[in-house]
Amino acid sequence: MLVSRVPWCSLCRGALRRATGTSPGPAVSGRRWLSQDVIKEFETIFGPKNVSTTEAIKEQHSRDEGPHTPAPPDVVVFAKDTSQVSQTAKLCYKKGIPLTAFGSGSGLEGGVNAAKGGVCIDVSQMDKMVELNASDFDVVVEPGLTWRNLNQQIRDTGLWFPVDPGADASLGGMCSTSASGTNAVRYGTMRENVLNLEVVLPDGTVIYTAGKGRRTRKTSAGYNLTNLFVGSEGTLGIITQATLRLHSAPQVVVAAVVPFPTTTAAVEAVVQTLQCNVPVARIEFLDEHTITACNKYSKTDYKLKQPSLCQVDIVTEIAHGNGASELHWAREPEERSKLWKARHAIFYATCALRPNTRCYVTDVCVPISRLPALVAAAKEDIDQHGIVATVVGHVGDGNFHTMMLFDPQDPKDTANIFDVAHKLASRALDLNGTCTGEHGIGIGKRGLLVREVGESGVQLMRTLKNAVDPKGIMNPGKLFL
Amino acid sequence: MLVSRVPWCSLCRGALRRATGTSPGPAVSGRRWLSQDVIKEFETIFGPKNVSTTEAIKEQHSRDEGPHTPAPPDVVVFAKDTSQVSQTAKLCYKKGIPLTAFGSGSGLEGGVNAAKGGVCIDVSQMDKMVELNASDFDVVVEPGLTWRNLNQQIRDTGLWFPVDPGADASLGGMCSTSASGTNAVRYGTMRENVLNLEVVLPDGTVIYTAGKGRRTRKTSAGYNLTNLFVGSEGTLGIITQATLRLHSAPQVVVAAVVPFPTTTAAVEAVVQTLQCNVPVARIEFLDEHTITACNKYSKTDYKLKQPSLCQVDIVTEIAHGNGASELHWAREPEERSKLWKARHAIFYATCALRPNTRCYVTDVCVPISRLPALVAAAKEDIDQHGIVATVVGHVGDGNFHTMMLFDPQDPKDTANIFDVAHKLASRALDLNGTCTGEHGIGIGKRGLLVREVGESGVQLMRTLKNAVDPKGIMNPGKLFL
Repeated sequence: MLVSRVPWCSLCRGALRRATGTSPGPAVSGRRWLSQDVIKEFETIFGPKNVSTTEAIKEQHSRDEGPHTPAPPDVVVFAKDTSQVSQTAKLCYKKGIPLTAFGSGSGLEGGVNAAKGGVCIDVSQMDKMVELNASDFDVVVEPGLTWRNLNQQIRDTGLWFPVDPGADASLGGMCSTSASGTNAVRYGTMRENVLNLEVVLPDGTVIYTAGKGRRTRKTSAGYNLTNLFVGSEGTLGIITQATLRLHSAPQVVVAAVVPFPTTTAAVEAVVQTLQCNVPVARIEFLDEHTITACNKYSKTDYKLKQPSLCQVDIVTEIAHGNGASELHWAREPEERSKLWKARHAIFYATCALRPNTRCYVTDVCVPISRLPALVAAAKEDIDQHGIVATVVGHVGDGNFHTMMLFDPQDPKDTANIFDVAHKLASRALDLNGTCTGEHGIGIGKRGLLVREVGESGVQLMRTLKNAVDPKGIMNPGKLFL
Repeated sequence: MLVSRVPWCSLCRGALRRATGTSPGPAVSGRRWLSQDVIKEFETIFGPKNVSTTEAIKEQHSRDEGPHTPAPPDVVVFAKDTSQVSQTAKLCYKKGIPLTAFGSGSGLEGGVNAAKGGVCIDVSQMDKMVELNASDFDVVVEPGLTWRNLNQQIRDTGLWFPVDPGADASLGGMCSTSASGTNAVRYGTMRENVLNLEVVLPDGTVIYTAGKGRRTRKTSAGYNLTNLFVGSEGTLGIITQATLRLHSAPQVVVAAVVPFPTTTAAVEAVVQTLQCNVPVARIEFLDEHTITACNKYSKTDYKLKQPSLCQVDIVTEIAHGNGASELHWAREPEERSKLWKARHAIFYATCALRPNTRCYVTDVCVPISRLPALVAAAKEDIDQHGIVATVVGHVGDGNFHTMMLFDPQDPKDTANIFDVAHKLASRALDLNGTCTGEHGIGIGKRGLLVREVGESGVQLMRTLKNAVDPKGIMNPGKLFL
């Protein structure tokens, strides 16, 4: 069962060296664990059809949509229920086999890459809505259900789940990475919208972070286990069920695309909007290249050559005070839907700007007053390095992404991207910010985590990791160097 | 330095036995640790004036406002900065001395009671606003600053901190208990409003949960250490600084007191209000006894003999649809202020109903649809047991309090209260709820925590506790049986 391993991502290796002065060390240990006996045990748990060691399946489960070098697992198992996940953990724990969960594979920081090989447990078939409590504004879901499918299923109730990352991510994955999206300024991120989790611990024990069946909007009963697992990127356990908060779908919605003369003016408008307590659900910044990419890919025709804000319920007075012009209103549901579809397709629209390349998406987040300077610096760096890129931002949160295209076969091109990304993260850290607002640490930002949280903070995280997962089987090679 | 110990609270003891079938065991070990040498070391750290072993000072630091039997520490030290807290922890860690932090002492579950004696570190003099970042909507504060003082200091900025527990609690204590209050339905609890914490770990190490100086509105960088400490009730470390989210102070506010024929009708109105997406900041339920107590204590004259809702920005149409009558509007700031002052004084107004008694405040929280039945059952129990009590609720959150008066010298009276409180918590747990929405576990609800989260969940909490505080010096005797 030994497979030849893809070498460690040279990009991450470089980034790590720069960030910490250390190398990630030998990537993979042996594969002694995957004997035929173990495979047979998995076949007993899942049925032979749901256990695969074929190269194609392993390849499919070797990476997400990010730029990190794929790392296939040694076996992929397809789970249908919590009991199977628990049995798998128990077996892996006994044998010391690495165990990595896989949802929709739409992450960006290599969270699902099987960095140390072992077992990949695909939970995408655990995609049921288990229980909808409409009058309590909550829903219980399996981890493989995507946020778009959830919203489709509850459309008739007048409720919705507002966390909307770019891709049609699975809700389990969104819990794991502490995802957010365009609505966080009003509705919060996953941290604020998960009420309870069913989690399989490394030894197979099934726990409920808030207690079985509990779904209160708030609690102060002991340690906040829910938010220990939200954002833990599968390194402490595997999420097998989530209880989520729902919200009333907004009834009166107005959307507009508002061009501004400068990035600073656009961000100033956001600060003033927030200060006026306007119930804004989304304020998205799009740079001029993004508008071009959007128009080309999504067949829209926003005639703008300036940085713009996509807003809901915009206060035109404030926008005009900051030099906004040519408001493009979208009052009708169809037009709004087109607008947000175009916004959500920006990753693919950007990729289409330079075919046969890969896209590196940065994810810095800073206090909002620091945003204009940081966006300007990022755009200058991108221009200076001659990179094809778009810049979009959830500016209400101080969070923005540069989507930079590069040819992974071209070392100079690759180095360019990583230089700019690293400089951007460093600048964000210098401005009281974070290197990752919503994508997570994964493989690529482990060095940056140390700079961000400090040695003592990361040491505390390691203490927690070692206490919960003493054998280190859960998604090894992530978060920590 | 040996002091005679107050015996374990017979109330808690009884409650624990009922909940778990176990007794809390011997309460106190010896006092070998407090030699004159150790006291001298504290005097070197704090200066002799700020180290006290006088009975009066120890007595002041032996309890909060809750019903649990006082447990004085052996020495009280008054901290002025993080370095002193760190040095204290280092010393206690070395000697294995219990260390309990004390803020304003306004808690209700005995969180500050020195259950195992040792050192009480009073941080109430660490009460500065350290850094206000108005355009970023955040503020850095020391733990002894109270939420009322903070709001007074930032009044001119147009910003406010919305978490408002009944008492003028310290912000450090509010972090520790995961406090909330009347605005949580719109602005969230402490869990959603703390961005970063400076924490002294048991061995004296100072960490920043989100990294030093970081104050972004969101992050997905590693484990959520911030929310590990929020709600941990001082059992993992001592909070020495907090970075909090601020919000724009609402500009247009309307308040009303709305009487309803029944509790069910009142709660139905709340559900419909939330479903209509009305930007309600507070919806408080007051039962008929509360109105009476309010009028008597706060010299108000709400002429109501029915369950009522206190609402901001109420939708009268919905209220009328549910049988509301006699709206008492408070549009003017003075009248609103009077209304909310009366609301916040309910604890004291209740105590005044039966002088020379103690007040036991329950804190259950359930999914909102379960609320009418639970409130009705609680009121029936209270009536059947002949208890003088008021019922108030943050009904938008599914959270409500009964404030029950009892004479602690009268065993029958005391048993009555605990029977009703235990029955209420049990009912809440049966209805997918929690035994504590915002007060914490402290001493009194340790047995209930096991029922609520389950053995495996509490075991995971213990694993975390043992990993972070291996010597068990941080606020021992709390959370866990």
